[in-house]
Amino acid sequence: MKSIILIVLDGLGDRPGSELKNRTPLQAAFRPNLNWIASHGINGIMHPISPGIRCGSDTSHMSLLGYDPKIYYPGRGPFEALGLGMNINPGDLAFRANFATNINGKITDRRAGRENRGNDALASAISIDMGDYKFRVKSGVEHRAALVVSGPDLSDRVTDSDPHKEGLPPERIRSLDPSADRTAEIINAYLDRAREILSNHEVNRERAKNGKLPGNELLIRSPGKVPDIPSFLEKNHMKGACVVGSPWLKGLCSLLRMDVFDVPGATGTVGSNYRGKIEKAVQLTESHDFILVNIKATDVAGHDGNYLLKREVIEEIDKGLEPLRTIGERTVLCITGDHSTPCSFRDHSGDPVPIVFYTDGVMNDGVQFFDEFSSSHGSLRITSYNVMDILMQLAGRSEKFGS
Amino acid sequence: MKSIILIVLDGLGDRPGSELKNRTPLQAAFRPNLNWIASHGINGIMHPISPGIRCGSDTSHMSLLGYDPKIYYPGRGPFEALGLGMNINPGDLAFRANFATNINGKITDRRAGRENRGNDALASAISIDMGDYKFRVKSGVEHRAALVVSGPDLSDRVTDSDPHKEGLPPERIRSLDPSADRTAEIINAYLDRAREILSNHEVNRERAKNGKLPGNELLIRSPGKVPDIPSFLEKNHMKGACVVGSPWLKGLCSLLRMDVFDVPGATGTVGSNYRGKIEKAVQLTESHDFILVNIKATDVAGHDGNYLLKREVIEEIDKGLEPLRTIGERTVLCITGDHSTPCSFRDHSGDPVPIVFYTDGVMNDGVQFFDEFSSSHGSLRITSYNVMDILMQLAGRSEKFGS
Repeated sequence: MKSIILIVLDGLGDRPGSELKNRTPLQAAFRPNLNWIASHGINGIMHPISPGIRCGSDTSHMSLLGYDPKIYYPGRGPFEALGLGMNINPGDLAFRANFATNINGKITDRRAGRENRGNDALASAISIDMGDYKFRVKSGVEHRAALVVSGPDLSDRVTDSDPHKEGLPPERIRSLDPSADRTAEIINAYLDRAREILSNHEVNRERAKNGKLPGNELLIRSPGKVPDIPSFLEKNHMKGACVVGSPWLKGLCSLLRMDVFDVPGATGTVGSNYRGKIEKAVQLTESHDFILVNIKATDVAGHDGNYLLKREVIEEIDKGLEPLRTIGERTVLCITGDHSTPCSFRDHSGDPVPIVFYTDGVMNDGVQFFDEFSSSHGSLRITSYNVMDILMQLAGRSEKFGS
Repeated sequence: MKSIILIVLDGLGDRPGSELKNRTPLQAAFRPNLNWIASHGINGIMHPISPGIRCGSDTSHMSLLGYDPKIYYPGRGPFEALGLGMNINPGDLAFRANFATNINGKITDRRAGRENRGNDALASAISIDMGDYKFRVKSGVEHRAALVVSGPDLSDRVTDSDPHKEGLPPERIRSLDPSADRTAEIINAYLDRAREILSNHEVNRERAKNGKLPGNELLIRSPGKVPDIPSFLEKNHMKGACVVGSPWLKGLCSLLRMDVFDVPGATGTVGSNYRGKIEKAVQLTESHDFILVNIKATDVAGHDGNYLLKREVIEEIDKGLEPLRTIGERTVLCITGDHSTPCSFRDHSGDPVPIVFYTDGVMNDGVQFFDEFSSSHGSLRITSYNVMDILMQLAGRSEKFGS
């Protein structure tokens, strides 16, 4: 049995751009290591979820790790909480949240002037227990926050308190089916208590004194209940680790009880310590069966619409991949993206992404380069759901279906 | 956001024939416009429904339009009615029907001598209301007709009245489960009434006088209830139009509440005004988000087993495609077939069909020609269910799954 390294270059796929003489950033990049791996591996294109689906990093990573997001995806709320580094567990209910301004019962600013200073203290003040239920709030960027509720029999079949429009009072949470009646009641009681605490909080008194908008209302939306999700070990029978920068992905891996590793100099964006992440992954093959590496910088450059930056990022990443040339004897390697983020679109698209599998002993399918064009002439046309199965079987770890 | 044109060349796919030096009609045709689009687009093969499935135009078009026929296909009865231009609505029950000859309670000719003359009058005479139920009959080719029943709580879990054999009496309609008991009762009462009306109708008295077989029995079969189907707008969030000739396809598009357009000189068969249909589609991109064009002539030539005609038809169609070369800036184009109709098989086969997607800014996958061989070297291996997702994402119209 071999160990497995899955390297996800976030938002890797792209479309041709005139800035690069009608090539994609990947085609235009000097990428000797990616090309070496392609020319020794099994290549193709991978459709995240299924052809044409425009998916998020969250749903795509879930499916790459062997979890069908149609079954396990808990919605935006829990991922917002994971992204803020909050601890969430199966059964918890999570919401996206805003600190907002409530004047005489009406929301006058849904973002409380986008103020962030003091929000940590506000979040801490309304992180309270009420009976069997624990409420935890964490502040994020600007006015943003997340709320995690823990306790028995919670349901996500409830409405938002966010009126999604200014000049209206905050909405009472309503249940969408009778099983959520109790949840709605509990959360309404909590929001009343939170309003009381926030109104009297010194951070808000201070803001009033300085003519600033108070963050005296927590508006919540996008409820999602964390499903009863099997651990990575239970699901895939492998001891899993990850070397990833994005907080939400660290959170997802924690939820799956994979071991999360940090690398000095890894920033989760452009200019990260790519080489360090790869070396760490190779080192982890001593102690773990499966290692996920995510490199976010490619996606960042795509969202920026910056062809030259994306090419540069790919060239830097490629330098870091050199240690992978010699691991094929005891490791199976896969390099792909979680989706395309074309510079011309500046957001995730539904285009497929190049994929390569490499380990000693496999047959190269004639593909010599790793890019959107060359990979599409390889042998594989797969979806993200197929990746784990292919990795497992190449590693000699699959159970036989039948006999 | 771009608009979308989906052009379905009916029964396009074929197999090589010695009449064409072992090429397919598509390979043998002079097709500069199809080849230009292929050489600027994303190519591949598309399996209608799934690999190896031999499907009808009805089921294939439903899946291309985003409706899984396993959920929404109402059966042959409703499509026969749609094909005759009858108005049908969700909840209606439709049957294929024959005018037949009933002598002393036994069916002596299931087709009443294949006589058509006078059938319009017969159909009109038995288009009646009985209590809450409306019965509408329309005559088709020769002895053929369709029956549409409208009214509360109809079920298609009923048997045929057609004994499917001569020398037997017409069958009483039976219910296949208790929920259909009332439907069976209503339809039996109607068929008794229809027999009475037909027997005394002057058309049949005239036929008897002239020694011809009377059409004095309506035999019905293939019951299908029209499902509660969401409109195209509800399903795909686009304002849809179609430029199609076949009555059943006009009927399907009407059922989906798409706008149906006619083009002068469009015949629904060989020799249609192909250019006019394409120009109409391009013009409709001003007012609509999605335009379906169906060109039937390729299928007609395939059913005829006429390789030379099919090649000629493709060459004529290709001339009409010229306006499509310049629409990529604001339109996404897809050209494919709904299934193969190989001249050697003279019917729909389960072979995949070539497909190409084109809009400005996509990467050509190296394919230079549009045909069964060349397209199979493109990047896509998809099914008809993927087509709408791919079109939507290329048009920048997809919602993200996750974040």
